[in-house]
Order: sequence, then C-alpha cells, then structure tokens
Amino acid sequence: MPTYSDTDQSALTATVTVLGLGPMGRALADAFLDAGLRTTVWNRTPGKDQELLARGATGAASAAEAVAASGLTVVCVVNYDAADGILRDAAVTDALKGRTVVNLTADTPDRARQAADWAAAHGIRYLDGAIMTPTTTIGTPHGVFLYSGPDDLYQEHRPVLDALDGTHTHLGEDVGRAAAHDIALLDIFWTSMAGYVHALALARAEGITARELAPFAQGIAAILPPLFEEWADDVDNGTYSGEGNPITSGVSSMSHIVHASEAHGIDASVMRAAEGLARRVVGLGHGEDGFTRVTELLGRR
Amino acid sequence: MPTYSDTDQSALTATVTVLGLGPMGRALADAFLDAGLRTTVWNRTPGKDQELLARGATGAASAAEAVAASGLTVVCVVNYDAADGILRDAAVTDALKGRTVVNLTADTPDRARQAADWAAAHGIRYLDGAIMTPTTTIGTPHGVFLYSGPDDLYQEHRPVLDALDGTHTHLGEDVGRAAAHDIALLDIFWTSMAGYVHALALARAEGITARELAPFAQGIAAILPPLFEEWADDVDNGTYSGEGNPITSGVSSMSHIVHASEAHGIDASVMRAAEGLARRVVGLGHGEDGFTRVTELLGRR
Repeated sequence: MPTYSDTDQSALTATVTVLGLGPMGRALADAFLDAGLRTTVWNRTPGKDQELLARGATGAASAAEAVAASGLTVVCVVNYDAADGILRDAAVTDALKGRTVVNLTADTPDRARQAADWAAAHGIRYLDGAIMTPTTTIGTPHGVFLYSGPDDLYQEHRPVLDALDGTHTHLGEDVGRAAAHDIALLDIFWTSMAGYVHALALARAEGITARELAPFAQGIAAILPPLFEEWADDVDNGTYSGEGNPITSGVSSMSHIVHASEAHGIDASVMRAAEGLARRVVGLGHGEDGFTRVTELLGRR
Repeated sequence: MPTYSDTDQSALTATVTVLGLGPMGRALADAFLDAGLRTTVWNRTPGKDQELLARGATGAASAAEAVAASGLTVVCVVNYDAADGILRDAAVTDALKGRTVVNLTADTPDRARQAADWAAAHGIRYLDGAIMTPTTTIGTPHGVFLYSGPDDLYQEHRPVLDALDGTHTHLGEDVGRAAAHDIALLDIFWTSMAGYVHALALARAEGITARELAPFAQGIAAILPPLFEEWADDVDNGTYSGEGNPITSGVSSMSHIVHASEAHGIDASVMRAAEGLARRVVGLGHGEDGFTRVTELLGRR
C-alpha cells in the first residue's frame, strides 16, 4: 500500500473529501486514510462514517461543509440521480466553486457529459471517472480506475488519486469516455455472469453441481482473452471472419442450449435473444461470417 | 505431440476411423495420423479427405466400409441429426455390431442418451464425448475432451484417445453427462461472446474502437474465474450472498447499459432479458441477495 508521501512530499497536508459511504465510498476513504491524507467524509444517511471517524477521518454536518474542507471532492454514490441530488443543492454548488469534483459514480456517458456541463456553468472543475474492479481491490495494486475530462485537471490531482493504488488511466478530454468504457465493460461483465448463472441452472437440472462445473467454467473464461483480442481486429477491420468457425455453427450450439434449457422448464430468454441476433445475421446472408458480424447488426441504422 | 507408441507399445497397429471431415473431424484425423495410428476417414460430401489421404490416411467408399476398418469409430459431425443419419443406415449399423463408437458430435444430453439407447439395442458399444476447445488445440496439450458412458469402455479406448493429446476426463456412467457439461459450458461461452460483441457495438457508437476496448475487456475476463469459483459455492449452498454487491446494484448497471444502447439505436435484447431476470429476483423480495439468486429463479418449478 503506497503512502501519500511516496508520491509527492510537497503535498503531505493534502486533503480530500469523499461523498457517499456505501461499500465503494468507504473503501476509497479507507485507502485515502491509509495513505495519510486528511480525509473528510459525508453520507446522506448518517452513521455510515463511524469506522472511518475512528480511523481518523473528519466528519461533516452537511455535504456543503464536507466539500468546503478539501480542494478535491471524490463522489461515489449509486447513480447520477443521487450524485446530482447532492451536488446541485445550492449550498454545495456554492461551496464547490473553484474546487474540483472527481465523480466516480457509475452511469451513462450522457449523464457524465451533463454533469460536466453543469459543473462548467457553476465554475466547478470536473473530472469523470469509473472504477472497474471490486471494493476489495481499492488500495491494492489490483484496482483499475478510468478517467476522462481535462488533462491538466487529471495531472493536477493525480498524486491524490494515486493514493488509491492500482492502475489509473486518463482516456481523453471527452468527459463521457470513462463512462462509455465503464458501460461497455459492465456489459461484458453482466452478460457473462447472466450466462454463468444460466449454465449453473442448466447443470443443476442435469445433476451437475456448481462445484463440479466451476473448474470447466474457469477453463472457458481462460479462452476468452485471446478471442477478445482476435475479434477486436475482426470488428475494427470489418472482416468478421468465420475462419473455420462460421456463425451457423454458433447458431447450432445456441439452439441446443435453448432446447436443453426449455426441456427442463428453464427460462432461456437471454440465449433466445442472442440466438435471434445470430439467426438474423444468417438471414441477412452472412452465414459464413464469424459471430462478430452481430456487432454490425446491433448498430445498424 | 505424443506418438501412439508412447502410450501403448502393444497396440502399435491400432486403427481408428473418423466419420465427418469438417474442420474438427479433420483436426482429429490429423492428430491420429501424427500419432502413428492407422486412420480411416470418410465424409458424406466427397473430396474433404484429399489432404488426409496424402498424409497416409485410408479412404473409404462408404461409411459402412469405413467403420468396418477399425475397432473404434470416432464421429464428429454438425449435430445428432447428422450423426444419426450416418450411423442408423442399415449397412453401417450392421458393420458397427460389436465395435465401439465414440460420438464427439455436440448436441443436447437427451440426444446423447437416445443415441446410447439405440447403440445398446443394436449391440454397438457407445461412449459419448464433447470437445471443449477449438480445432487448433487438437493434437496439442491445450485440447479438452469430456466423456461419459461405460467406464470400462473408456479405459479400453483411452490409449487411442490419448493420441489426441490434451486433457481427457471421464465424467461418469450417465451417458448424457458429457453433453450436459458441453451445453452448460457453451452457454457461458456464447452468452459471454454476445456480451462482448454488444460491448463493441456500444463502444463504437461512443467513438471507442474495438482495439481500444480490448485490453480492458481482457481485464474483465480475468476477473471472471475467481468469481465463478465464489459463485459456485453460493449456488450449491443456496446462500446467494450479496456480500456488498446486492443484485439491486447489478440492476442499476444493467439499466444503464440498456439505456445507453437504445439511446444510440442499438438492440439491447440480450441485456433486457438479463435485466428482466434480475428485476424479477428483486420483485420476489431478494434485492439484498447476490446476482446468483437468478439461478434459483431460472429453474423455478
């Protein structure tokens, strides 16, 4: 775990405010405290700050008081409705003038852009961000943080953000870019997880325990990264190459999965949707192409 | 690459027949030839055996002639309709009497059990199997082969099957077990891939190339195996623990993905189906549970 003094001796008295003390907000505040920063914390529902106060965090009677305590406020709440509900309060907006907000709340790219517009209109310096890894990775080398917005603002606050340890990547000046990456990556995560729980339900109906399936499931996960790499080129180049694995073969597998599931009375709505997309690609005359051709269909104008 | 003589000196003259010369069937025949087995090959559509014959394989004028040439016939065609179409021809069935079929064709567990019943009724010894890895892994240590059916039959033919290299696992006497694993694992694979191509479509609409997203996508794939392990226990134990990651938080992410997709005119049918399942779990009063609770809902009677 890095201490703040490792990265910038001149900023030993640096302060940071954390708004939102759900599991992720608490993990962020913990990591800032571990790194020796003066950390002010606030949560809409009281009582979530007890452990942090015991560890040396400073409490605040209101969000306005909390943001006034630091040059940098990190926001991590459930979504932008919640974030806006806190930040757009007149007293908070006023207290934030000339200060920086790093919004690590997850939502859509549009909401991030709207928040940046609102911040600019009120003289608030604004960076958007996304945390790609679970709470347990915060303060360890395994955390992954994405940011977008003004580069100079990112560089200025980098020493404080580095106190969270992990990997920090600035994706560009378009403030919606971190949220766009976040959404796309969560798309992969949640769709994969929907596939996994479905596989467990199907396995159970066939008398196979989750424990029995898990090692093989992990083997499947291990073959994804090189395919992600290969398919990325296929999509960027518009080649959609089937290379001995045409989408018709995928359709055949998918229909077996739907059939086997429904024969057990198991809901197959997710796979039915995926199979439908693949069948439409075949119907459009691209049966010899690879499954990546679905990307084209999904975004069709 | 192992040679057949590595595993069993006494069986140097062992023979094997491969029915079906699609990409996977050709890879299997190639590996048998590499290992020094006398390999007979046949395909319904002629001409697919040319390279194999040039490498020393024996051709056959008919499927019946092909299966008569060896004690063990490996079948790998597109599905069980195709496999049955070959095997249930009277001349083939007659020629197979007393011999062994290892059916590596992919289909549902029910079809595997029906094939085993048919084989038993005709005095044909039958093992079912599934290949979990791409054609390029055949004949390398990276191939993964699953089998189910009589253990003594598996042990008897193990030396020939080992000529394919890779990992071979016998999952039990229930002949549907290999297909059940296959279907469940393909479920994970194809659902994950549906998530990936969707993420690429969404990223593209946000001005992010597949090449830019790929390294982060690979990071997401890397966090799946430990979660697969953790969630397996959750499901087998019926704990469905949310542990700081309740399904309501997943619902929030999923609705952002649907919203961001449809705002770009992108089809979100797969994620809509997944989100619907998660919302039903919340509606049934399990909002504090983990996403694994979906397993229970899917298999509900």
